[in-house]
Amino acid sequence: MEYYSRQISKLIEELSALPGIGSKSAQRLAFHILNMPMDHVEQLSGAILNARKNVRYCKQCFTLTDDELCPICKNPSRNQKIIMVVEDTRDLAAYEKTQKYEGVYHVLHGAISPMLGIGPNDIKLKELMKRLQGDVDEVIIATNSSLEGETTAMYISKLIKPTGIKVTRIASGVPVGGDLEYIDEMTLLRALEGRVEL
Amino acid sequence: MEYYSRQISKLIEELSALPGIGSKSAQRLAFHILNMPMDHVEQLSGAILNARKNVRYCKQCFTLTDDELCPICKNPSRNQKIIMVVEDTRDLAAYEKTQKYEGVYHVLHGAISPMLGIGPNDIKLKELMKRLQGDVDEVIIATNSSLEGETTAMYISKLIKPTGIKVTRIASGVPVGGDLEYIDEMTLLRALEGRVEL
Repeated sequence: MEYYSRQISKLIEELSALPGIGSKSAQRLAFHILNMPMDHVEQLSGAILNARKNVRYCKQCFTLTDDELCPICKNPSRNQKIIMVVEDTRDLAAYEKTQKYEGVYHVLHGAISPMLGIGPNDIKLKELMKRLQGDVDEVIIATNSSLEGETTAMYISKLIKPTGIKVTRIASGVPVGGDLEYIDEMTLLRALEGRVEL
Repeated sequence: MEYYSRQISKLIEELSALPGIGSKSAQRLAFHILNMPMDHVEQLSGAILNARKNVRYCKQCFTLTDDELCPICKNPSRNQKIIMVVEDTRDLAAYEKTQKYEGVYHVLHGAISPMLGIGPNDIKLKELMKRLQGDVDEVIIATNSSLEGETTAMYISKLIKPTGIKVTRIASGVPVGGDLEYIDEMTLLRALEGRVEL
């Protein structure tokens, strides 16, 4: 890209290294940034650096946060006896958006995947088992409905059952508003298996 | 977003303010950044800040650059007597990618738009006319094929004609590989009007 000057090329290059940003979007973003007021650019650049500098795992649930305890673990109105196990912080955020879940979380940071060589020791599973030594009523496994997510769910439930703590798995089925015609067979079968009496 | 800690929320907020980045992409980008090695994050953050800090207009062609003269104006093998007029630096880059154009550019930074209240004095038009006092053989108008681009092209050509300098406009027509069936009527008419003998 020798038709852009060195620093503009560098900016475009850095932006195109981000996921989902191709060379066209990177150019558009770069020129947007070049036209932004200087103080906005300082805020953007600072937000990137500060978030990365200060990010760490919540010492209880292992979500990404910038404090010792995340806002959810710190919240006294949350039920600490119900733990939802998710693969990553974004999955936690997805459930938080429902505004209906009142328990806390445990973030595994991944899922067991023999294919990718990710075993039980590569995710925050020991940390979960340690939490279960406390006063816990239920563990809700909300890993993804993928091969890895299901494998992880099975593995965790086998690990927890001997402790006598209740283990549940979020339901799998037809999404709300989903048109059966466009839904894959696996999901349709799951929905059938998981049917509930009306 | 009180389910993310303050600095992560701030990062997501800053990213979603960028064009073409919705809240989902902003979250994905934020977590990608949080997982990047610290030195990469410093490079990204630095590239943003440095590009913006040092950006300025090339004193000859007004493209965005970080030096007094842009790499194209500085290049002794480019023909300084042929000037292609474009709306912005990205349009310049688009023509540079063809690797066939050997003249130089003039970047207007916009197009005349009575609707948006952008007049001839709001774009780098005076600066173009000043350049034409030098030794120039041809001005190629490569503003976009939009209403604003066409208006600007007409305006500039009327301004230049009295100087006796040759003024041309890039051709408008069916894009290479374009399937007539899917091309709008205006383009089809343009292509017909602009037909060339074989």
